[in-house]
Amino acid sequence: MAAVALVQGASRGLGLEFCRHLLQHRAPAAVIATCRDPDTAPALAALSGEYPDRLAVMRVDITREEQVRSAAERLSSTFPKLDLLINCAAVLHPSGRGETSLRDVSAQGITATLATNTVGPLLMAKYFSPLLKKGTGAFGQQPEDKAKQHCGVLVNMSARVGSIGDNALGGWYSYRMSKAALNMATRNLSIELGHSHPKIVCVSLHPGTVNTDLSRPYHKNVPQHKLFSTQYSVQCLMDIIDSLSMDKSGKAYAWDGSEIPW
Amino acid sequence: MAAVALVQGASRGLGLEFCRHLLQHRAPAAVIATCRDPDTAPALAALSGEYPDRLAVMRVDITREEQVRSAAERLSSTFPKLDLLINCAAVLHPSGRGETSLRDVSAQGITATLATNTVGPLLMAKYFSPLLKKGTGAFGQQPEDKAKQHCGVLVNMSARVGSIGDNALGGWYSYRMSKAALNMATRNLSIELGHSHPKIVCVSLHPGTVNTDLSRPYHKNVPQHKLFSTQYSVQCLMDIIDSLSMDKSGKAYAWDGSEIPW
Ligand SMILES: NC(=O)c1ccc[n+]([C@@H]2O[C@H](COP(=O)([O-])OP(=O)(O)OC[C@H]3O[C@@H](n4cnc5c(N)ncnc54)[C@H](OP(=O)(O)O)[C@@H]3O)[C@@H](O)[C@H]2O)c1
Ligand SMILES: NC(=O)c1ccc[n+]([C@@H]2O[C@H](COP(=O)([O-])OP(=O)(O)OC[C@H]3O[C@@H](n4cnc5c(N)ncnc54)[C@H](OP(=O)(O)O)[C@@H]3O)[C@@H](O)[C@H]2O)c1
Repeated sequence: MAAVALVQGASRGLGLEFCRHLLQHRAPAAVIATCRDPDTAPALAALSGEYPDRLAVMRVDITREEQVRSAAERLSSTFPKLDLLINCAAVLHPSGRGETSLRDVSAQGITATLATNTVGPLLMAKYFSPLLKKGTGAFGQQPEDKAKQHCGVLVNMSARVGSIGDNALGGWYSYRMSKAALNMATRNLSIELGHSHPKIVCVSLHPGTVNTDLSRPYHKNVPQHKLFSTQYSVQCLMDIIDSLSMDKSGKAYAWDGSEIPW
Repeated sequence: MAAVALVQGASRGLGLEFCRHLLQHRAPAAVIATCRDPDTAPALAALSGEYPDRLAVMRVDITREEQVRSAAERLSSTFPKLDLLINCAAVLHPSGRGETSLRDVSAQGITATLATNTVGPLLMAKYFSPLLKKGTGAFGQQPEDKAKQHCGVLVNMSARVGSIGDNALGGWYSYRMSKAALNMATRNLSIELGHSHPKIVCVSLHPGTVNTDLSRPYHKNVPQHKLFSTQYSVQCLMDIIDSLSMDKSGKAYAWDGSEIPW
């Protein structure tokens, strides 16, 4: 059976580009794109018009556990398996800008950021891992040794600024803390979903600084050659995904394949 | 002027013991103990009866930003400075038990855990750091070089299981993720509060496995000599606090002084 990939947070930015890439370059793979409001995602709707047989769009607000649960239930009644889950949705901060200092920190801001960036991906893992366990290993590298093979791949889109050890600048409290916690989720998931068959590879990925709405307020500070197009970033990230196997699980990688410290 | 220390989450367990220790061994230090409900904290009330002139109890639920803000405002009208802030309050999970697997994960459970363990300490840092900046460096080691001296010490009580790199067992999703995010807060705080004078040392500390309510469900699995009394743990942690200087800021240490990886 053809590969099945789910991209969570696919209305725009990297999530949308992952869908486009999978449709263009991975035929006959089926793609499930989730977003919180398909009615305000025209680019995704256009893509679904182009690939009506291979792209399915589902409404999921990942901050609502009930929506995540019922989406997983619906999906498993249509698809027998899932090979790849990419958790993409995130906010920098509800204000659109990361905190430059403690002065900008608010309970409301960090709570909302954690809900989308941290709790949402964990809920996705909870409800969709049963379907990933039925995957047929269509993504990643499979070693010869059957005991070391995996059935599925789970990607949490993280960020270099979520690395505690790499943090030399400070600021962006909510975003940094949400991604550090997400990296812990990746690590925990790699253990729980990796200790017995069928196994799931779980990684955090950093896409580089990419030309999307999320980083837009900061683009003017980024040298042109360091501001990636979504196409370039997704191509790099798909190369990493293609290279994944169980021995790479539980770690964080940047777009160039280098490992990021915790 | 005598040292001033604030212990947040002082109704019982390690927080209560920090207060007792500071009162018994650090006279004439003044201690401010915060807890969310002084009426249900009899041991703290008894301590305040013993040391009426040195212990002040304040009501602060750290999940309520307004309470944290107004407590800081009240405190700064009574005390001209703060030398030490210990963020102690935490929950393992609202159910009292860490998740053994994804099955136990719920949005409500992790959201509540993050509110107390992660957002609360950050709010405390936001509203009390101005008072810490007026500290006179009564805790920690002061090097001769004035440029390297600190005015205050901020301790976030973390946990070894909050280390992503050290995580080999998995489970306890909410607690682990909340402490990883808290460690990022420590790191960020060390940068913001360390880059210009007056400077604040910021660290995460792991108390060992301690005989308190938090770890009670797991005591039977812990060898007797590895289950510390609150007295022993606090003595070890105070030794670490006494050794702190700016060059140790932004890191995580265990009760024995060893550094914990992120
Ligand atoms: N761009 C960068 O430079 C950069 C750098 C490092 C890491 N990253 C990471 O890469 C990932 C993708 O970011 P991006 O740059 O593509 O961001 P983006 O263009 O701003 O897109 C963010 C996506 O998240 C979705 N989203 C937000 N809240 C949601 C919720 N509650 N439920 C469901 N979806 C929600 C948005 O949906 P709506 O359209 O409905 O708002 C949108 O699809 C993120 O995890 C980000 O942290 C990006
Ligand atoms: N015990 C261990 O083995 C161990 C190991 C590693 C790390 N730690 C860490 O050490 C610290 C102290 O833990 P402990 O063992 O002393 O725990 P504990 O005995 O269970 O005490 C927890 C404290 O947190 C307070 N608290 C909870 N929610 C609160 C809120 N919303 N606002 C204000 N206070 C709140 C509790 O107050 P109430 O009385 O009002 O509930 C209580 O004072 C924690 O950060 C914990 O994670 C402990």
